[in-house]
Amino acid sequence: MGYPDTFEGFMIEDQKNWTSFKKQEFKPKPFEETDIDIKVEACGVCGSDVHTINGGWGDCPLPICVGHEIIGKAIKVGSKVTTCKVGDRVGVGAQIQACMKCKICKAGQENYCPDKVDTYGAPYKDGTIAQGGYSSHVRSHEYFTFPIPDNISNTDAGPMMCAGLTVWSPLVRAGVGPGKKIAVIGVGGLGHFAILWAAALGAEVYAISHSPRKEADALKLGAKKFIATQTKDWHKDWAFAFDYILNTADMTHTFNIQDYISTLNVNGEFHHVGLPDEPLPKIMAQDFTINGCKMGASHIGNRQEMLSMLKLASEKNIKPMIETLDISEKGCAEAVERVSKNDVKYRFALTGYDKVFGK
Amino acid sequence: MGYPDTFEGFMIEDQKNWTSFKKQEFKPKPFEETDIDIKVEACGVCGSDVHTINGGWGDCPLPICVGHEIIGKAIKVGSKVTTCKVGDRVGVGAQIQACMKCKICKAGQENYCPDKVDTYGAPYKDGTIAQGGYSSHVRSHEYFTFPIPDNISNTDAGPMMCAGLTVWSPLVRAGVGPGKKIAVIGVGGLGHFAILWAAALGAEVYAISHSPRKEADALKLGAKKFIATQTKDWHKDWAFAFDYILNTADMTHTFNIQDYISTLNVNGEFHHVGLPDEPLPKIMAQDFTINGCKMGASHIGNRQEMLSMLKLASEKNIKPMIETLDISEKGCAEAVERVSKNDVKYRFALTGYDKVFGK
Repeated sequence: MGYPDTFEGFMIEDQKNWTSFKKQEFKPKPFEETDIDIKVEACGVCGSDVHTINGGWGDCPLPICVGHEIIGKAIKVGSKVTTCKVGDRVGVGAQIQACMKCKICKAGQENYCPDKVDTYGAPYKDGTIAQGGYSSHVRSHEYFTFPIPDNISNTDAGPMMCAGLTVWSPLVRAGVGPGKKIAVIGVGGLGHFAILWAAALGAEVYAISHSPRKEADALKLGAKKFIATQTKDWHKDWAFAFDYILNTADMTHTFNIQDYISTLNVNGEFHHVGLPDEPLPKIMAQDFTINGCKMGASHIGNRQEMLSMLKLASEKNIKPMIETLDISEKGCAEAVERVSKNDVKYRFALTGYDKVFGK
Repeated sequence: MGYPDTFEGFMIEDQKNWTSFKKQEFKPKPFEETDIDIKVEACGVCGSDVHTINGGWGDCPLPICVGHEIIGKAIKVGSKVTTCKVGDRVGVGAQIQACMKCKICKAGQENYCPDKVDTYGAPYKDGTIAQGGYSSHVRSHEYFTFPIPDNISNTDAGPMMCAGLTVWSPLVRAGVGPGKKIAVIGVGGLGHFAILWAAALGAEVYAISHSPRKEADALKLGAKKFIATQTKDWHKDWAFAFDYILNTADMTHTFNIQDYISTLNVNGEFHHVGLPDEPLPKIMAQDFTINGCKMGASHIGNRQEMLSMLKLASEKNIKPMIETLDISEKGCAEAVERVSKNDVKYRFALTGYDKVFGK
């Protein structure tokens, strides 16, 4: 077999052996006239990939091919597709379908559709399990496929599809821009994008991190100042300082959360995009009353936000900090192992697809 | 002694005997030229009064005279006061002073000033402890003193000063009005005001309560529908239904909070004004991602909000449901005992001040 009947991917067969990638064939969902077949050229490596294959987020259908920061060329385009033609360079993020009929979808909030389909590990209506971008090809609905501007490279664009959008959406929904003071907690895959975007949007950005070792990078990315939380009473100098805090850390369960929210301005928001496996620290309703603040979280972003993010990145020529690795059984293993140890500055993109899957 | 050197109030001397009110004299703060002396005519009875005198919120300076829903006549007005003259009917709520100099005050957010002074139990700069409105007189800064429209009675206006404002402020900050679906949890002192205000603001209001016994009152107050949470899986019919939930209950620590937030529309907010003595239920950051919702809380409201609330109440002739009791050692005891048992529909106002304090 082979394309178009089957695709090939680097897959995990057992969550106990979550670094044992095996190249194998899988069957994609049936092609519909709103679908696009993409020959993959690069794919970012997301923390979600690790949480999925190692069981941190529970069981998943096996074998599984992860990867939801996918860039490639459209090689087949359904007759009803209007947004893309064969040969276009396109991207796919963490969501590959939604019902498009419910009140949520009709409001353009398809990323919250109760019937959304994740890019990998989720069943389509016909029972086919969606598989991700550590693979030769991806079959995607056009609504979840995005044109990539020419001046954004494959390996820069890949990580924007999930990490980039995940922090972009809450920043723009919060009205981050000139005159706003924004703090970003955590300088990693998500956090480094958040600093880039918030600075590009015109806000005054502060990076908050446990240890001072990421200070130079944070300033280079656009932060005005770096705040190290290992200093005792660090928060006391920042009472009522920030209009918005974007928390990209996934160790929030270890935080003294009251210290952090005391740095919010009146009616400010503490917003989670890092998702720890543990519950949030104990909090009282009273803790929110000192400044009338809010705490929330979000799930990726919608199509409109993906397009506006790519537009700004292209216009301002924004360059994330990306390490590349050639895709292979070994390359995939190294990527997920190092992501699980936070040993990457600040995101991996898998590349070299032609070498393993052919032209 | 006596006015103007001393005021008289019904005071608690020991948190263990929190229903033993004793009428006694106390010394007010020194009069300043921005102050107004008010001869009290009515005072609402707030849950805060109970939490303060019975130690639920910790120690307090003793003896203490509680009451922060105060209505009366201005009988002395400082030379720098511009908003009120002798003889005016005025009200005082839960806050009696702020620094008026910090960035919070300058932004008109004086209810979040770190140096705010509560109406009772809090020290002024000179060390005098502020005392509340279960008393003959109150001395207040003009900024925290509000003209009462003629068509709002003393006993209706009293409870608006704290309960009314506490729910008004978050509703208007959330933009509650036509086209918005709002849920109010709890039909009590706070909740009954929230239903009145949200309906008057033009929103579609839903009352959520544990037991169905308050249904008739909720509908009478302006709710479109009543939702009883004792029905199993009650929340499943309301997924993504509400733009905003105002939680006035103080038993939130016993909630399955995930059920409640699942009823929020995308980017909706679950907002606390009821403040339990216990931490909120365990929650994960992930719980907020199903609809991108937020959770927050607020502390009373600012001057502008107090004035706009009184204006709407007057224009729409809004009548809360208030029970009255004559002020006395016995009357105060009955009021706080019954409030502690939620045995009031839906707020007490103490009245008959002339009988105990003279004309």
